[in-house]
Amino acid sequence: MEFSSKLLERAVNEMSQLPGIGKRTALRLVLHMLKQPKDQTLGLANALQNMRNDVKFCTSCHNISDVALCEICSNPNRLTDVICVVEDIRDVMAIENTSSFKGLYHVLGGKISPMDGVGPHDLNIESLVTKVAKGQVKELIFALSSTMEGDTTNFYIYKQIQQFNITTSTIARGISVGDELEYADEITLGRSIVNRIPFESSLKH
Amino acid sequence: MEFSSKLLERAVNEMSQLPGIGKRTALRLVLHMLKQPKDQTLGLANALQNMRNDVKFCTSCHNISDVALCEICSNPNRLTDVICVVEDIRDVMAIENTSSFKGLYHVLGGKISPMDGVGPHDLNIESLVTKVAKGQVKELIFALSSTMEGDTTNFYIYKQIQQFNITTSTIARGISVGDELEYADEITLGRSIVNRIPFESSLKH
Repeated sequence: MEFSSKLLERAVNEMSQLPGIGKRTALRLVLHMLKQPKDQTLGLANALQNMRNDVKFCTSCHNISDVALCEICSNPNRLTDVICVVEDIRDVMAIENTSSFKGLYHVLGGKISPMDGVGPHDLNIESLVTKVAKGQVKELIFALSSTMEGDTTNFYIYKQIQQFNITTSTIARGISVGDELEYADEITLGRSIVNRIPFESSLKH
Repeated sequence: MEFSSKLLERAVNEMSQLPGIGKRTALRLVLHMLKQPKDQTLGLANALQNMRNDVKFCTSCHNISDVALCEICSNPNRLTDVICVVEDIRDVMAIENTSSFKGLYHVLGGKISPMDGVGPHDLNIESLVTKVAKGQVKELIFALSSTMEGDTTNFYIYKQIQQFNITTSTIARGISVGDELEYADEITLGRSIVNRIPFESSLKH
């Protein structure tokens, strides 16, 4: 692609470094910015700079935060002895949206994935084990993706904390609400039968 | 969507103002930036700022440029009396890539589209008419999209410059190179028959 302006070329090149954004999309986005008021582009640039320079990670749960201890960890109304282990902050947001969990989180920052070169020491596992070792945790809920990597990570953490004799659980796998049985895959359907729950408790929600 | 950080929220909001980028995609992009080295995000922000502050539009053809007169307009090897009228700078890039045009361009900045509130006075039509009125232009090539809006714009400009008695042409419509006849639409196929060219001249390319 030949550009008539070096400034434009640099903006397009930088933009196309983002995942899922190729050169053509980047050019389309950048030309759109040039048509919009100047403030909009400068606002975006400024927001990105501020975020990258000043954003913090909660010292306790590793969630993204503006302060040292995030809003969830510093909220006195939350149960401090139940910890939900998640992969990244999007999972925290997703679970928070359901309003069905009142404990704290622990953000691992990824899953163990030897194929991608991610080992246990690249994740926030040590700080989780330390938390459990201090004896303040009653239950650990594993809420990782139901994939090979997610299961591996669950199992690795389980082995690390087994000695401390706390309750561990994993989120239920089963048919999504609103799904038809005939379209469910066999493994999910099988698990949802094995892990069936009393009918009365399904009426509560 | 509930964010645990105002900085993150602002970055996501600004990012999702871009066309085709919703809140979820914006969050994915912003979280990706947080995982990459700091320099990358700051580089992007800086490139956007520089572009928006310093980019110029060529005073003659309205192409994007770093200097007052763009590289194409200031190139002494180009024919100055043939002007190709295009919608935006992406079209200039596309035609330049073909290396088959040695004249100058005139970038309108859009098409006449009453539905979108774009009238002739929102486009760079006046400066084109002025150029033609000065008598320096022999031929005007209309290279706009083959749509209702493109045709309207062509016709509007044609009416404006009719009095100056110059040659006007429009790029050929026909079957794309490599296309099979049976999949071509009727109008395109019809036009390609009406506007057939001598076989000998098709051998030149």
